[in-house]
This record gives sequence, C-alpha cells and structure tokens, in this order.
Amino acid sequence: MNRNDVTEKIISTKVAKGLQWSAIASKLGRSKEWTTALCLGQMSASVEQARCLGEIFGLTDEEQKWLQIVPHKGTLQTPVPTDPLIYRWYEIVNVYGSTIKELIHEEFGDGIMSAIDLSMAITREADPKGDRVKVVLSGKFLPYKQY
Amino acid sequence: MNRNDVTEKIISTKVAKGLQWSAIASKLGRSKEWTTALCLGQMSASVEQARCLGEIFGLTDEEQKWLQIVPHKGTLQTPVPTDPLIYRWYEIVNVYGSTIKELIHEEFGDGIMSAIDLSMAITREADPKGDRVKVVLSGKFLPYKQY
Amino acid sequence: MNRNDVTEKIISTKVAKGLQWSAIASKLGRSKEWTTALCLGQMSASVEQARCLGEIFGLTDEEQKWLQIVPHKGTLQTPVPTDPLIYRWYEIVNVYGSTIKELIHEEFGDGIMSAIDLSMAITREADPKGDRVKVVLSGKFLPYKQY
Amino acid sequence: MNRNDVTEKIISTKVAKGLQWSAIASKLGRSKEWTTALCLGQMSASVEQARCLGEIFGLTDEEQKWLQIVPHKGTLQTPVPTDPLIYRWYEIVNVYGSTIKELIHEEFGDGIMSAIDLSMAITREADPKGDRVKVVLSGKFLPYKQY
Amino acid sequence: MNRNDVTEKIISTKVAKGLQWSAIASKLGRSKEWTTALCLGQMSASVEQARCLGEIFGLTDEEQKWLQIVPHKGTLQTPVPTDPLIYRWYEIVNVYGSTIKELIHEEFGDGIMSAIDLSMAITREADPKGDRVKVVLSGKFLPYKQY
Amino acid sequence: MNRNDVTEKIISTKVAKGLQWSAIASKLGRSKEWTTALCLGQMSASVEQARCLGEIFGLTDEEQKWLQIVPHKGTLQTPVPTDPLIYRWYEIVNVYGSTIKELIHEEFGDGIMSAIDLSMAITREADPKGDRVKVVLSGKFLPYKQY
Amino acid sequence: MNRNDVTEKIISTKVAKGLQWSAIASKLGRSKEWTTALCLGQMSASVEQARCLGEIFGLTDEEQKWLQIVPHKGTLQTPVPTDPLIYRWYEIVNVYGSTIKELIHEEFGDGIMSAIDLSMAITREADPKGDRVKVVLSGKFLPYKQY
Amino acid sequence: MNRNDVTEKIISTKVAKGLQWSAIASKLGRSKEWTTALCLGQMSASVEQARCLGEIFGLTDEEQKWLQIVPHKGTLQTPVPTDPLIYRWYEIVNVYGSTIKELIHEEFGDGIMSAIDLSMAITREADPKGDRVKVVLSGKFLPYKQY
Amino acid sequence: MNRNDVTEKIISTKVAKGLQWSAIASKLGRSKEWTTALCLGQMSASVEQARCLGEIFGLTDEEQKWLQIVPHKGTLQTPVPTDPLIYRWYEIVNVYGSTIKELIHEEFGDGIMSAIDLSMAITREADPKGDRVKVVLSGKFLPYKQY
Amino acid sequence: MNRNDVTEKIISTKVAKGLQWSAIASKLGRSKEWTTALCLGQMSASVEQARCLGEIFGLTDEEQKWLQIVPHKGTLQTPVPTDPLIYRWYEIVNVYGSTIKELIHEEFGDGIMSAIDLSMAITREADPKGDRVKVVLSGKFLPYKQY
Repeated sequence: MNRNDVTEKIISTKVAKGLQWSAIASKLGRSKEWTTALCLGQMSASVEQARCLGEIFGLTDEEQKWLQIVPHKGTLQTPVPTDPLIYRWYEIVNVYGSTIKELIHEEFGDGIMSAIDLSMAITREADPKGDRVKVVLSGKFLPYKQY
Repeated sequence: MNRNDVTEKIISTKVAKGLQWSAIASKLGRSKEWTTALCLGQMSASVEQARCLGEIFGLTDEEQKWLQIVPHKGTLQTPVPTDPLIYRWYEIVNVYGSTIKELIHEEFGDGIMSAIDLSMAITREADPKGDRVKVVLSGKFLPYKQY
Repeated sequence: MNRNDVTEKIISTKVAKGLQWSAIASKLGRSKEWTTALCLGQMSASVEQARCLGEIFGLTDEEQKWLQIVPHKGTLQTPVPTDPLIYRWYEIVNVYGSTIKELIHEEFGDGIMSAIDLSMAITREADPKGDRVKVVLSGKFLPYKQY
Repeated sequence: MNRNDVTEKIISTKVAKGLQWSAIASKLGRSKEWTTALCLGQMSASVEQARCLGEIFGLTDEEQKWLQIVPHKGTLQTPVPTDPLIYRWYEIVNVYGSTIKELIHEEFGDGIMSAIDLSMAITREADPKGDRVKVVLSGKFLPYKQY
Repeated sequence: MNRNDVTEKIISTKVAKGLQWSAIASKLGRSKEWTTALCLGQMSASVEQARCLGEIFGLTDEEQKWLQIVPHKGTLQTPVPTDPLIYRWYEIVNVYGSTIKELIHEEFGDGIMSAIDLSMAITREADPKGDRVKVVLSGKFLPYKQY
Repeated sequence: MNRNDVTEKIISTKVAKGLQWSAIASKLGRSKEWTTALCLGQMSASVEQARCLGEIFGLTDEEQKWLQIVPHKGTLQTPVPTDPLIYRWYEIVNVYGSTIKELIHEEFGDGIMSAIDLSMAITREADPKGDRVKVVLSGKFLPYKQY
Repeated sequence: MNRNDVTEKIISTKVAKGLQWSAIASKLGRSKEWTTALCLGQMSASVEQARCLGEIFGLTDEEQKWLQIVPHKGTLQTPVPTDPLIYRWYEIVNVYGSTIKELIHEEFGDGIMSAIDLSMAITREADPKGDRVKVVLSGKFLPYKQY
Repeated sequence: MNRNDVTEKIISTKVAKGLQWSAIASKLGRSKEWTTALCLGQMSASVEQARCLGEIFGLTDEEQKWLQIVPHKGTLQTPVPTDPLIYRWYEIVNVYGSTIKELIHEEFGDGIMSAIDLSMAITREADPKGDRVKVVLSGKFLPYKQY
Repeated sequence: MNRNDVTEKIISTKVAKGLQWSAIASKLGRSKEWTTALCLGQMSASVEQARCLGEIFGLTDEEQKWLQIVPHKGTLQTPVPTDPLIYRWYEIVNVYGSTIKELIHEEFGDGIMSAIDLSMAITREADPKGDRVKVVLSGKFLPYKQY
Repeated sequence: MNRNDVTEKIISTKVAKGLQWSAIASKLGRSKEWTTALCLGQMSASVEQARCLGEIFGLTDEEQKWLQIVPHKGTLQTPVPTDPLIYRWYEIVNVYGSTIKELIHEEFGDGIMSAIDLSMAITREADPKGDRVKVVLSGKFLPYKQY
C-alpha cells in the first residue's frame, strides 16, 4: 500500500457517494483549497484529520496512517500540462512569468514569493458578462540575504 | 528588426535610466501588470500607447509600429522555468493543479478559467511575521457546451 | 474505478458489438463529434446522457456517474503524436501555425480562437479525383483586453 | 543568404509599410491562406509570383530566387507551442485527436486526411454573442492499400 | 481487450509454434512486408484476412474483430529508437535526410513522397564480400498545390 | 571557419547560380545521392573531389581543405523532424520499424543492416495514377558474433 | 547590454588578470560563495558592492547598474548537467534525494529546506588518504501550514 | 521478485509499524543517512545488515538476498524533480552550480568532488528566527591526471 | 510471455541461487561479457545454448525458445543513464566523444568503429594505489565508401 | 574571449596547417588521447603546456591563459549523439550497460569505475578480415563505503 492507493480510493469514493469538496472541508474545519489538496495527496494530515477523513471515505487504520505521511508532491503528469483548465494556469505563468518577476522585485527586491507559506482562495465573482473565477494567492516574501 | 529587438531596447533603457514599471504604467494610464506585460513583449499597444512608450524609451517610428503588432507570446525559456521566483509559480501549478481543477469544476461545471479575459493584480500585504505578496487573478469562466 | 476504465469499456464494447459513433450520436441527440469526444473521455455527460450511454454500452450506475465527472482531458500520448492520421493535424498546426496566427490577428486583432467554445463538423466531400475530408471548425474569438 | 533571411525581410517590410496579407494575396491572385504561408517560408513560388512579391517587398533577384526554392518547413519553435493562439490549435488536436481519428476511419476506412493536398479558409462568422472564427479545412483522403 | 492484446498473442504464438512471417504471408496472399505490419498492429484486415489469421494464431471472434479495427499506429518506444537495427534506419534519415529532400524536390518539385500510398520490399542481395539487405521503397509523389 | 560555413556557401551559391545536384554529380563522377550528401556536409572528399567542387562553387583553398575533413554528421534539427518530406521517412521508420526488424532477422539472423556500407538510389517511377518516388537502399548485413 | 554581457566581462577579465574569487570576496567583505554567485550572475549587488566590483573588473556605470538588477537565475545549460563536477552534485540529489526528503520530514515534519534563506561554505578537509571537499549548507526550515 | 519490491515492502511496513529511520539506523549501527539510503534501494547491505533489517521489517530470506545485491540507483522520477523539498536541492545545484565549480577548482585544481566516497549528515540547527536544516557533505577530491 | 519475462526470471533465479556470471559463462563456453549480455536480453542464443541456460535457470521449453529470438535491444531506461556506474560510461562518451572521433578518423579515415562486430573484456588490474577496472574494446573499422 | 573561442581557433588552425594530433602530442610529451581532449576543450594545461600549444597554434598570451583554466566539460550537443561514430559508443553503453554494471559489481562489489582517474588508448589492430579499432580503458575502482 502507498499514498497513491489512498488518494485513488478517496477519489473513487467521492464519485460513488456524490460528495462535495466544500462539504468535506466543512467537516474538517479547514479551507476547501487545503482540504482538497490534502485529499489529492499533496498535504499531510494530523491524527484527528486523518480520522475525520477516514470516517467520510471509509478508510482503514493503515490508510489513515498514510494520510499522515508527507507525500511525494506534484500533480502534473507531463512538464507541460495537457488538461485545458490546468494548462491555462501554465499559460499564465508562461505569458506573465517575466511580468510577475519584475513587479515583485520592484516592490520587494531580490527574493521570491513562497510556494510553501502560501494560501489560496478560489471564489465565484458574479459578472453580467459571464461569471468569473477569482483566485487570491497570498505567499510570504522571502528575501535572498547576503552572507 | 523584430519585436524582440524592441523589448530588449526597452529593458536596457529602463536599467540605464533607472525607471520604475509602476511609474511607466501611470503615464500610460493602465495597470502596472498589463503595462509591464506589454513592455516585455506579451501584449500589443494602440497607436497612442506606442507613442507614449516611444517617448519614455526613445523609440523610433518603426519601433513603435512593432509595439502595435500582436507578438509571439511566451516568456519561459524552458518547459520548466529555472528562475526561482518564476519556478515557485510553476510549483503552485504542479502542487495545486488538480485542486484548482476540482474546485472550479465543483463551482462552475465543465469548462475553464480564461487566460485571455484575465486580469491580475500584485500587491504588498503587510504582515508582522514578514510581508506577503498578494496576487489576485480574475478570469472569466468559459463553459464547454454541447453541440 | 476511474474514468479511464469506463472509456476502455466503452471502446471494447463498441468493437465487440460492432456499433457506429454516428448511430450512438443519433440516440443521444447530439453531434457525432461531441458524442465521440464524450465517449473517449474528453467531455462530461448529463444524468440523462449517462443513462442513455449506459444502456448502449451496459454501464453500471457507478460507471454512469463517472461519465458525469469532468475528466482529465488530452488524448495525445506523446507531445508529438505518432499515429499518421493524428500527426497530419499536428503537421497542419506546424506548417500553418504562423499563418493562422497572422490571419486571425489581421481580422480580429489581439486575442485567440477559443478551443472551449468550439464546435467541429467532419464530413465527406465527394471529388472525382478522390473524395476529401472536410472539417469545419467554429470557435469564438476572445480578445485580450487592457486593464 | 538563406530562405529565413528573406522571410525576415518580408515580415519587417510588412510592418514598416503597414501592409495587409489579404491585399498581398489579391495582388498575387491566390488565397490569403496560401499566400501568407508562402511569405512565412512554408510554400514555394513560381518565377512570376516571386517577381510579384519582389515588387511588393523590394526583394533582390537573389532573394526572389530563394522564394522559388522548396523551404525547410515547420513554424513551431517547440514541440508544444507557447503562443496562446497557436496553442489552442494544439489543444484541439490534443482533446479531439482521437475523435477525429475515429470519425474519419468510420467514414473512410484506414488511411489519412492529407496535409499536403489540403486547403484552408479562415473567415469571420458574425454572432450576436461574440463573433467567431470559422476555419474550413479540406484535405484529400488517402487510403492505406494492401500489397 | 484491445488491439495490443491481440498483437501480443500473435507474437507469442508465433514464437511458441515457430512460425515464419513469409509463410504466414503466403497463406494470406499478401506480401510479407504488409502482412508482418498487419500482425504487428500497424495495418487493418478484412473479415476474410482476420479469419485466416484467426486460424493460424487461434484467435477468438472478438480478437478477429480487433484485427479489422484501424489501430493506433507507431512502433517506436522513444523518439530516437534504441534497438541497433531500427536505429540504423533512423541514422539513415538523420545523415541522408537533407539529401533525400533535395533530390526529390529537384526531380518532382514541392511536395512529399507518401508514407501511406507506399509499398516496401526487403530482399537478400548476394555479395561475395558479405550479403546485403536490399530494400525497395515505392511511394507516390504528392505535390503541394496552390489555392 | 568550419565545415558548416562551407556547406552554407555551397548551398547559397547553388541557389544563386541555379545549379542542379545531378549536374554537379556528373562533373564529380559520382552518384547524385553521395554527391549531394557530400555537399550538404555529411561525407568527406578526396583532394581531387574538393578541387572539382572548389571550381564549381568558387571555394578557396582553405574551404577545399574543410571538404576533406570528416564532418560531424547528422542533419535533423530535432529528434523528430518537422519538415513534411523528411517526416514521412521518420514515419516509415515508426510504422514499419518493427516489421523491418522482424523480416531482416527472419532472413539473416541476429545483426543489422549497415548504415555505413550503404548506397541509396532515388528515381522517378512513372505511374498513370501519379508518378512515384522509388528509393533503393542496399546495406551490408553485419551479424552479431559470439565471443 | 544585459546582465549576461557583464558576467562574461567579469569572467574574461578575471582570467586575463589572474584574479582569485577569495581575494575578490575579501575586498567585497562577503563570503567567497556569495561573492562568486554574484559575479556569475546569480545574486544582486548594492550600489557600493557594484562600485567595488566595478573597480576590480573595470566596469562602466551602466555595467554597475546591471549588477544591481535582480538577474534571471539558473546556471545549468541542460536539465541534466554535463560537466563532471556539477554532475556529481546532480547525482547526489538523484541518489540521496529520497533520503534527504525522509530525514528532513522525520526531524521537522512537512515542509522544505529553503534554497533562498540559505548559506553555503566550501572548505578543504585535510585527509591522509586524499584531501576532501567539505560543504556545509544551512537552510531555514519552512513548514507547510494548514489554512 | 526484484529490489524494488523489497523497497516498497520496507516503506509500507515502516508506515504500518510507525518506525523511525534514526531508530532503524541505531539498530544497524550506521548513520541514519546511509541507512535510509540503503532501505530506499540505493546502497547494498552485508549479510548481517540484511538479517538485521530482515528482523525489523519481516523480510524473507530471498528478500534479504536482494538487499545484498548492488541496486540500480537513482530516485528521481523525472530529470527535474517535482517534489518541492527535493526540487530545492535541484535549485541549489542550478543557482550555485557554477559557483561550486569555480571554488573547488580554485582550491583544488582540475578534478571533482566524489559522489561515491562521500558522506552526508543532516541535523537541526536551532535558530531564534526559525530552526534551520544543516547538511554537511564530505566528498573526496579526485584530480584529473595527465597521461 | 515475452523475452522480458524470461530475463526477469533469469535475474531473480540468479539472486535466489547465488550464481555468478563467470561460472554461467564457463558452462556455456563463452566469454562472461557476451554471456551476461545474452542473459540480460541483449543477444540471442543457439538451441544448445538455450538448453544449457534452461538447465541452469530452470527454464521451460517456451522460455528457451524466447532466448533464441533476436530481442529488442537497449538497456538504458532514460536517454541519460541515472545509475552512477553506467553514467560514468556516458560521461566518458560525453567528455572524450570528440577525441575518440578525431583519433579514429586520423588513423583510419572516414568511417566508424562497429558496435556489432565488437568484443569486450572486463578485467581487474592490480594497482597499489587501488585496483583498476580494465576494459578492452575491439571493434571492426567500417569505412564509408563512395558510390 | 572564452575557452570555446580558443578551441575553435585550435581546430581551424589544425585544418589550415594540416597538422596531426599524434604529432602535436609528441611535441607536448603526452599521449595523443589526453592531448586531443585538452585541445578540444576538455582538459586543462600547465603553463608550459599552454606555451607549447601556443607556439604550435599561434595562440596569444590571453589564449594560453584560457588553456590553463578548468573548462566546462562535455562534447555531446544532444543527450543522444547524432554523429554515427560517436553514436556507436552511446549504443555500446546502451546495449552493454547492464552487462558492464553486473560484471564490475561481481568482481569489485558496490562502487564505480572512475571516469576521472581514467586513461584511454586507441590503436589499430591489424586483422585480415578488416582492421579493427582497439580501445583500452583503465579506470580506478571507487567503492561505496558505509558510514
């Protein structure tokens, strides 16, 4: 058994039971973004969180233990993603990558926006010309230091 | 001459004169995100915008014409970016890609978040534990339709 | 179980029963192009459509649920396709890619032809020198906007 | 000197003079699709066509000779294109590739749609919800034969 | 079940029974080149041919049906083949590729040598300094046409 | 100066003077296939051959010396060729690769068809349904030996 | 002019003058590791540091300005490095990568060792069986947090 | 059975039993770094070490024999690692690669730091601003010699 | 069943029984280099050799038949090998590749050193500073000929 | 100026003057293998050796200094080499890679054959059936040690 087996069981149980990520997140008491990432094998759970998910998805003790192990992360199956929804994000990085770099450096100096100390929120933005997806990313700025 | 020559001239002039993207954007009357993307060869300008940038960067008539041509877009030099700041964005897509896909589909159904009808805003978020980079993305949801 | 299992069952049932995509599409009341893409795991079905396909291919309730889930899309097994028929389409993009870009920009300005709000029709074009394949693509033009 | 030098001269002259592909095609007496592909280094010209383009773009005799040479074809700079407009076409091949294959084989049997004996027409399709790009491709069906 | 399962059954049956491709081709009444390509999953069979191969290899009705389906073609497992015999052919394309292009264009003009309307014959050429492999390829010339 | 400079000079001189590979081969007293490969930087010349080509293309003494150096060989610019004519040859290797391997082993046993001790002849094959390109390859069979 | 031009000037001046990185670092008042990374185009300098390096390497005002710009980082020319010394480090990541991951997670939990808030020290370790290279890396642990 | 099967059994047993690498290393009498690498299929064990691990993980005699076989090494699943923790190490090689090369050559001359005669120690470094990961690498310097 | 299944059985049997390649080679009456390559699926056996290996490894008749089939050759799992021992050979080709090319051409003229008509011998070379691996390669020179 | 410029000057001077690597090696008092690798930018020279080569190739003082700098090594232009002579060496690693690994481990245990403490000798081996290239490689065995 490995973490991937647990992830696949979670996903197929979710489809069979017709569950919603937002409802699962409510039960867990965490954001729907972090909760989904956890269920998809990208984050690690506490004992209590693993137990909570265990009840929702019918996971054995061993499967719950795997949820507490830090997983091997990464969900892209190829360097350039093929799914159109995910590709659009790759395209944003491609088209705006140098712009993002310039503007963060202009504001903060040499360093990066953390992808670890990061939170994300995805919401619907009503718009008469067609609703929009609003994504807010908040990542700590980490400066390069001289030594 | 091609668009890339103009981009390089803009960048080297910016360094030589010590200009700021946000100040350039103010003169252009557009957001600093769109303005920077334009200057870095990812967007196309109107005649007036090209003239405005022409004054800032000392561009010839022919160089201004190139700013009005739709460029061949994309700033990544390799499928996986090597610069640490830009890579963190690739990593966000890699770690959170399947999460973003699940949550947008849960909220909107089958479709994508547009990377064309998209705006982006990058700001500083003050934080006692270290300031944060806040990025807000707003992209129109485009549904797959049956036919 | 996952969507891929359902796709494989559909394909092998189609061969075993000797079915035709156009006949399946008629039963579903949709174009043969969209119907085939759905059956090959690229589109998502409504409850009724899943039930209709379930009868044609003998799918269980759980398999029908998978047809309603938005799939991870993409059918190319390598960045450059190897099958000669599919490769010819890649070659069209390769040889005519810059032409398509130039002409759409000349007519519409900066933006793209949508691959989401898109329909496709494939028909036989009789020709004394050998019949031809006629493909009509209709995709909404999406402009880049300034902000 | 090589064909690429001539292509670059044509493109930069077009920008400097503010020419349109459709107008150039009219002077040449060919479709705008084929004419653009020729100017972008993907097709080869007759002596008369080379002379006609030579007048439009101010090409020397040697440059006109290069237009008559069969070029090394292909416009993609990477296996997966990065420009958003061209990528959408790659995505169509990716998402619909297996569908196109199935439907052509269902109608014609084993073989391919030619990318050589092919014509293409790109037009505007007025639509109250936003104009559309209509592309019609016509390629001869070439059957695999037994021997 | 899929076409690949049938191909693997054919290959392992051939080894177990010690059959020869040329003998199989005689029974089928086709060349050994086309017959081998069919058995290796690159061509499609008629009902009668599938039945004939069914008898030779002990294929079920469903397996015979798969032989009549147009397969997803391509036998290289990597873009550059690793097997020494197959690599030599890749090397011929690599070393002589530009030569082949120049000479076909010199003789025929702009166009290609078809890989679909193609036949191949592989024979032994006796030679006192060591026998040689003689391969004759005959492919229809397909011209690019203007439109 | 390097071999590539000489190759480019030969090619651009050929276009400027309107020469034919077959005529050049006649002057050299070699086949058009080997001669073209030599001129394109894939073979090496004797002193006399270099002098002969030197007269045809107006090469200096140093340029003639480079023709006598064994070049770094290979003409493909990417692992999978993009030019349609050359790609068709890659496709032949892809579709027929396993067939070629099987049939050469059936006739000769374990070993390869040499890509070094190889000759090639490209000719026109008249055909009422459209002329064909006939290519004859003759390569020495080299057996793997046990030791 | 760009940052790469300045880097190349620094390197060629260093060779021509026979300078040592450790001596340059002493003048700059920083570690030899950070100083070398700065000179090789991976870090950014303050005005004073740029002036100091300007004196050592004879840099113009504009060249000194480029040293203060945050560079596009990354020194590997291919995903897998070819230089034997640098490859050994890639091999360490390859062979010990999963070990490093396991042990950091065992000690610290889910998170990463920062490559930004990082210092490095390279020293000689005398050893009778052959001196050794000792490298000490110190990177801040950054935990993934739940939200 | 192969080495990979044994590695997977070790990992899943470790999770199921809740073992620690450092405790396993103590029982084996080796460093936690080398022990973990051994358990993850990168090093080879003596008979006694295999027996010791066999008791900890419940391995059969045949599984213990596989621990004594030199494994096929390498833990990266893609040339550029996707897991954020491991990627940071790749980034260190990318950003500091040329610096490491310069400084080792400056101190030792032409040669490499061995990745074979190498030891590694990973420890926690307490720090009021957040604890740090300290990694000490010690690799023998191997000079290129002339011959 | 395929050749790979037989190779895996040979390898796992060798580990389970604790056999040596050199002893197996003695029984077969061939060099240990060729014998190991045969057992690892790179060479093909005669009937007698297959029977001899059949007795050593307990192979069935059908498994012995697979040893007589020419295998699909190649043992590298990625274009650049990851195992340190095998990588060192890749590095030799990388660092010394142009040297080997120059010196063979200087001695023999245009052509190659055969990788088919090749023998290899690997032996221990005692050395007070540490024993060495001595590898002797003997490959027939094959000249390119003009035609 | 960089090392590559010096390498190119050496190569073009060698062609223009018609020099031989073996003669150059004699003047330098080193093997032809090491000398060629040095001249091709893979090894570094002492002051005296640089002076000696400086006389042979007419190098300036600065160019001689570059010969004393440790170069960025590696001569392959693509991961899989395209030149037939160099490819044959890649093929040897591909076909015999696992064999070499098995036999060195059988003789020496876990470790590698050094590519740094390595010498190589290339000679002609007279043979009535065609002369052979004999290559002797001698590399120190480096054991993995436990810690």
